Amino acid sequence: MDEKLIRDPYNPIRYPLLIVISGPSGVGKDSVVQQLQKRNYPVHFVVTATSRPARPGEVHGVDYFFVSETEFETLIRNDELLEHAVVYGQHKGIPKQQVREALASGKDVVMRLDVQGAATVKRMAPDAVLIFLSASSEEELAGRLRQRRTDTEQQIQCRLQMTQEEMQRLNEFDYVVVNRDSHLDETVDQVIKIIESEHCRVHPRQVTL
Amino acid sequence: MDEKLIRDPYNPIRYPLLIVISGPSGVGKDSVVQQLQKRNYPVHFVVTATSRPARPGEVHGVDYFFVSETEFETLIRNDELLEHAVVYGQHKGIPKQQVREALASGKDVVMRLDVQGAATVKRMAPDAVLIFLSASSEEELAGRLRQRRTDTEQQIQCRLQMTQEEMQRLNEFDYVVVNRDSHLDETVDQVIKIIESEHCRVHPRQVTL
Repeated sequence: MDEKLIRDPYNPIRYPLLIVISGPSGVGKDSVVQQLQKRNYPVHFVVTATSRPARPGEVHGVDYFFVSETEFETLIRNDELLEHAVVYGQHKGIPKQQVREALASGKDVVMRLDVQGAATVKRMAPDAVLIFLSASSEEELAGRLRQRRTDTEQQIQCRLQMTQEEMQRLNEFDYVVVNRDSHLDETVDQVIKIIESEHCRVHPRQVTL
Repeated sequence: MDEKLIRDPYNPIRYPLLIVISGPSGVGKDSVVQQLQKRNYPVHFVVTATSRPARPGEVHGVDYFFVSETEFETLIRNDELLEHAVVYGQHKGIPKQQVREALASGKDVVMRLDVQGAATVKRMAPDAVLIFLSASSEEELAGRLRQRRTDTEQQIQCRLQMTQEEMQRLNEFDYVVVNRDSHLDETVDQVIKIIESEHCRVHPRQVTL
């Protein structure tokens, strides 16, 4: 970040933000991003590439780019991913070029990432805005994972244990927003407030990839 | 600031903020604070002490504490002021004890200050949140000062020249919010968004006076 850059109120320039929405499994990352999309919030929503199979209802190019393990390896070899990680035995990653193009056009970019991926992006782009979505308690999170009915009890226990480790990385984030059961709208409102406030910083963040 | 302090989403603690609303003469500092008060926004509004005479309609203890030059000297001697400055030949200052008590009770504190006073507070309390209100242009600001009809043209020219110097200190502030003519509500909304976002910072600001 260029410490000398100052936002000039008499000559407003849009400094696009790279916003990472992260948090443990089941906390509601996808719901928050979907809600931003439903509100037509004017940002570029990154589509993540993944090697895991689509869940019922998920659409290729909308929810994820569903790619084969082989295709994924090619993306990694060509250094075409902003971050990639193996999560529960499957690859996930962000195509770089997509983010560069959106930022260059002046648009804020929003991406959802697991905690490990968010930390990777922060190392590559220290001026990214990292938002950690949290449940209000571990019990609340466990309840939500059970409601989702996509995991076995053993998988749920594994995810909850992972969450405890992920909470240890909270200090690498900029903001923490509690996504309470049945309060999704408030959570989304708060995320938008954070984005709008970041656009008022005297010293704008500058993301270069 | 204690770098190790982290907001715990499972055990939320309220870390009260010290919010300084500043900016040049005529930009609308008083209007923004009055609007926050009208909305019953739940913060403690600091009452500034001043040695200038009350303008028509201003109420002692509400708009300002109007004190004599002698009383003001006593406050300074007893180190009972958070900041004080001579502005246009008259004293203005913030009684310290009032701020300490409000913060100790867990309440955010909002104060309006000229740019010089804001910079002083930031030196004494680096974790204060400094918001610079700006017009969208110098012409807009000049128009507002003329509409106020409390100053002579010479005084207005003097204020405008001072504004140019004040704009040079923008880099000491955290946020800049443009208060456009007839858009006071948007300005107040944005100030509230900044306050609420600051309450989501993973590393809370900690003000000690």
